[in-house]
Amino acid sequence: MSDEKDDKQDVWVGFDLGGTKMLAVILDENLKPLGRKRRKTRGHEGADAGLERIEETIQKAFKDADVDPSRLRGIGIGCPGILDLKKGIINEAPNLGWTDAMVCSYLNKKYDVPVILLNDVDAGLYGEYHFGAAKKSRSVLGIFPGTGIGGAFLYEGKIMQGDGRSCMEIGHIQVMPDGPLCGCGRRGCLEAVASRLAISAAIAQAAFRGQAPYVRDQVGTDLSEIRSGMISEAVEKDKVVKQIVQDAAYQIGIAAGSMIHLLSPDKIVLGGGLAEALPDLFKKGVKSGIEDWIMPSFKDSYEVKVAELGDDSAVLGAAAYARDTFHNRVKEEESDAS
Amino acid sequence: MSDEKDDKQDVWVGFDLGGTKMLAVILDENLKPLGRKRRKTRGHEGADAGLERIEETIQKAFKDADVDPSRLRGIGIGCPGILDLKKGIINEAPNLGWTDAMVCSYLNKKYDVPVILLNDVDAGLYGEYHFGAAKKSRSVLGIFPGTGIGGAFLYEGKIMQGDGRSCMEIGHIQVMPDGPLCGCGRRGCLEAVASRLAISAAIAQAAFRGQAPYVRDQVGTDLSEIRSGMISEAVEKDKVVKQIVQDAAYQIGIAAGSMIHLLSPDKIVLGGGLAEALPDLFKKGVKSGIEDWIMPSFKDSYEVKVAELGDDSAVLGAAAYARDTFHNRVKEEESDAS
Repeated sequence: MSDEKDDKQDVWVGFDLGGTKMLAVILDENLKPLGRKRRKTRGHEGADAGLERIEETIQKAFKDADVDPSRLRGIGIGCPGILDLKKGIINEAPNLGWTDAMVCSYLNKKYDVPVILLNDVDAGLYGEYHFGAAKKSRSVLGIFPGTGIGGAFLYEGKIMQGDGRSCMEIGHIQVMPDGPLCGCGRRGCLEAVASRLAISAAIAQAAFRGQAPYVRDQVGTDLSEIRSGMISEAVEKDKVVKQIVQDAAYQIGIAAGSMIHLLSPDKIVLGGGLAEALPDLFKKGVKSGIEDWIMPSFKDSYEVKVAELGDDSAVLGAAAYARDTFHNRVKEEESDAS
Repeated sequence: MSDEKDDKQDVWVGFDLGGTKMLAVILDENLKPLGRKRRKTRGHEGADAGLERIEETIQKAFKDADVDPSRLRGIGIGCPGILDLKKGIINEAPNLGWTDAMVCSYLNKKYDVPVILLNDVDAGLYGEYHFGAAKKSRSVLGIFPGTGIGGAFLYEGKIMQGDGRSCMEIGHIQVMPDGPLCGCGRRGCLEAVASRLAISAAIAQAAFRGQAPYVRDQVGTDLSEIRSGMISEAVEKDKVVKQIVQDAAYQIGIAAGSMIHLLSPDKIVLGGGLAEALPDLFKKGVKSGIEDWIMPSFKDSYEVKVAELGDDSAVLGAAAYARDTFHNRVKEEESDAS
């Protein structure tokens, strides 16, 4: 009997469109994962091929879940880059090389269900809020260092967004006037001094100078090879690597302290590969920056945690966001009608 | 007939408790002011005398409005300093010298109506949102430079607050590592470089050096005398004064640019005596800082305005906040009961 019910139950798709990988997950109404498919993104093949590939990946996930796509109720897509949230368009995704990809209308045509686009870090934090490190937080700030530093903020369960655009670009607050050049063209942005990429670059320099012999031995001085896994190994071997990570985490902590003065979150969730590979070291560095910066009246007002869901945070969050958004819309329409 | 109705209509009190002055206004249900009373605060007489003085001021405002206090429905109090918003206590108000003043329970005992405490800048921005420069904004950031630099943020009409505390302490984000010492004991806070007080100090130095002869002539080098009115006069006479104000406004603009990356407000409202005395110069400086800092995708996403309500913003906002909060509570209770 319960099987019969399950066969008719609505399902949702959560989709994480990353620069290197894409991941589709089919979830039931309670957001229990039923099946999934992960594939390489192949952004260089262009947006048209990419949209087809997204749809195929969703199809394969349905197959894995053994669920008929007719049960689909809605799709949530988390994606980095500059997004038009109202129109559901990826305006600019530097890691994909796509411009103006109309992902929502494409999938809406294929499946005839609502499709909602959101920033990948917003999706990740929404996932952590529903299922992971940020459960039941009144307000939570997410900081996800990677190639850049992504940020997200949830206030009473709502994702803070601009008008049709995502915001919380914590990577692009100025922390050092006339500091190092940032990828965005400005100087002294937080991500120019403390992203995983900035850390990798500092480690590559140390390796070149001979101060990080383990790294040099293992991967040389190519910063593309100095990824989170390598860094977390090297922390045990090369003293300077530990120092570099600590310094970056401390710098993030100073910025997080300013964020506490601004937003007073109960919880700060650190995510991304490096924070998850080195949770203790990273958390300690961030906390020490915060403690050195915040005013006494904000002491003990927050908790720092590391994300718990890994790669699943964004798919789960995107699906949860799609589900919550559409349920809210239905509620609003009902209350307007009554 | 309408007179008869008016005599029974609910009224609200908005109260602005400042370091030098206090202001009580009686407002009707539509927040039309019916009467008011302004007095010196006399913080040095202590909290007990202060609470009595607040109550007397409200009584005098009722008299001015020719309204019977029995019609009072609720009181909203805007106040600077460290507040316990849940308990309605002024924990620490540096400009008053009070600690742990139980203002809400005191007035609640006197009037037997709900009394709500909020940060003065939150109150001011809430006033501008309902009646002034921020009307109908989806999200609005307030920046009020004075002795410090107060900040506030409204998101979809809601004041962003911490759990029982106010936040948006934009004066205490770090803008200059190892920068000048701030009143809070840290270094390089925005308010240490760009508050009205920091501007006055820079002008006093220039006056001492002989670079601001008009100021020196008028008020000498005592920075207590270099207030907003004096500064706005001197801008026309002493070139260096104009430069100092522009630099500070530009610095606020850089910080505002970071805020746009974080919060993506539609509107930025500049308030406080100096911004209101020199609206064009101040707005221009802030906009130029923002434009030099923000990323292209946020261009044209915001508007910069100067506050329109002057001293009335906080009283009007406090009353509006009290009214809206209590109406929402009643709604919630009704929906819980049904």
